Amino acid sequence: MSSKRPKAGKKQYFRVMVSKNLSRLVRSLHQKKYRKTENLFLVEGAKSVLEVIQSRYSVKTLLATPMFLEEHADILSQKPLQLQEASPTELDALGTLQTNHTALAVVEMQPNLPLQAGPGEWALLLEEVGDPGNLGTIIRIADWYGIRKLICSPGTVDFYNPKVVTSSKGSFTRVQAYYTELLPFLEQQRLPVYGADLQGEPVHSFAFPEGGYLLMGSEAHGISPLVAAKLSGRLTIPAYGQAESLNVAIATAIICDNLRRSQPIRP
Amino acid sequence: MSSKRPKAGKKQYFRVMVSKNLSRLVRSLHQKKYRKTENLFLVEGAKSVLEVIQSRYSVKTLLATPMFLEEHADILSQKPLQLQEASPTELDALGTLQTNHTALAVVEMQPNLPLQAGPGEWALLLEEVGDPGNLGTIIRIADWYGIRKLICSPGTVDFYNPKVVTSSKGSFTRVQAYYTELLPFLEQQRLPVYGADLQGEPVHSFAFPEGGYLLMGSEAHGISPLVAAKLSGRLTIPAYGQAESLNVAIATAIICDNLRRSQPIRP
Repeated sequence: MSSKRPKAGKKQYFRVMVSKNLSRLVRSLHQKKYRKTENLFLVEGAKSVLEVIQSRYSVKTLLATPMFLEEHADILSQKPLQLQEASPTELDALGTLQTNHTALAVVEMQPNLPLQAGPGEWALLLEEVGDPGNLGTIIRIADWYGIRKLICSPGTVDFYNPKVVTSSKGSFTRVQAYYTELLPFLEQQRLPVYGADLQGEPVHSFAFPEGGYLLMGSEAHGISPLVAAKLSGRLTIPAYGQAESLNVAIATAIICDNLRRSQPIRP
Repeated sequence: MSSKRPKAGKKQYFRVMVSKNLSRLVRSLHQKKYRKTENLFLVEGAKSVLEVIQSRYSVKTLLATPMFLEEHADILSQKPLQLQEASPTELDALGTLQTNHTALAVVEMQPNLPLQAGPGEWALLLEEVGDPGNLGTIIRIADWYGIRKLICSPGTVDFYNPKVVTSSKGSFTRVQAYYTELLPFLEQQRLPVYGADLQGEPVHSFAFPEGGYLLMGSEAHGISPLVAAKLSGRLTIPAYGQAESLNVAIATAIICDNLRRSQPIRP
């Protein structure tokens, strides 16, 4: 996206600098503790910003270049939005991305409401997935495979971490997360729970039931013993070479692909 | 790994500081141009270092804590290695990782020798995969699925980039790469070449032949038109939700899983 000026004759934008208060707010939202107190998070980059504006999320403030505001005037007019012009340099300085020359939204977080898989539905359980890039990628995979619910252990990285949001590529708007202690959660479930493990039934031949939970442990520690005791079964991705393990997002993708191949119908 | 001192009575290590010359060399290897001139690259972290020492690679210098040197004396004695004690602080300052308190190896690069898939073999072709984390993950996936050859376009990120090496989790020792222009390469191949694409045959029902090439394009630009014209076919990962695309490493993993399911036998 080039930053050419509006042509003569077009509507002129008179730039108002981003206020110190707004700058301070945006920068504070890089950190989880301020996201919690403010109940706000950041969405960065043109594509994700356009997706969040058109989603169920409520956007509090949109900071964007005059060009972005002009190009997407149609979409922006659909919702009551507080608009703030910002230069590419200001956007770069405020956000977490190496380069974001276009748009940054300050968005209200969704409340942490209980979620569970309904009959015939599959949901993901994540135990201590600590890397934000992995969580963002898992959200994108869930969205690809029509899985709309993530149940996350409290030690799983924050769903609203800017890296999670960015690497989900807009999919965070379509996948919901519920953070809760997994043990009591699992005790209340009737649907089967399958854990990804290096020793288990091969996913290539496993007969996935109509609905249930797929549990992914952390890459470093796997599934914890107390949680593992609650599993209905363990699933393994067959290996044909010598790598010792797969990244948690990669493993999630492969198992979801095998799952949808045998249970393709969404509820 | 804690940094407790060797107990009294045990062999004592008298620390010699890492020399300025060695420090300068190690730090220069963060950059591709110096890796090229020196024909050396870095391997960081205990696990990867132990793997590279036991691989076909030739390790020039090993910088490690006294504890690491003592713990792995058996492995270290198998090869002629130039050993240099280093403190966790020195290792942190020299490497590219946020924390690496254990070991760092300076290793000789392998020459860029021509590779191609033999009869009944599958190899990966990568066009302009720019992200080092993605390439490292793809190397790990190739290793998991028993694929030993990567043919990379010149614009693909350097195989010896420290982030690639680290995220391959040791698999870079078992997978070989050949950087070359893809068009002339493809013109010389007899085996079929399948490209991952959003419009193609669904991988769930595709009858993979015994051997061939799987071509992955860049996440941003896909497969370039001239290369696409050389494809034997296009493969698509069926979608069940609303995400527009998948990350290139994720897509590689899913297609390799589908490939090995129908062609499980390694040559």
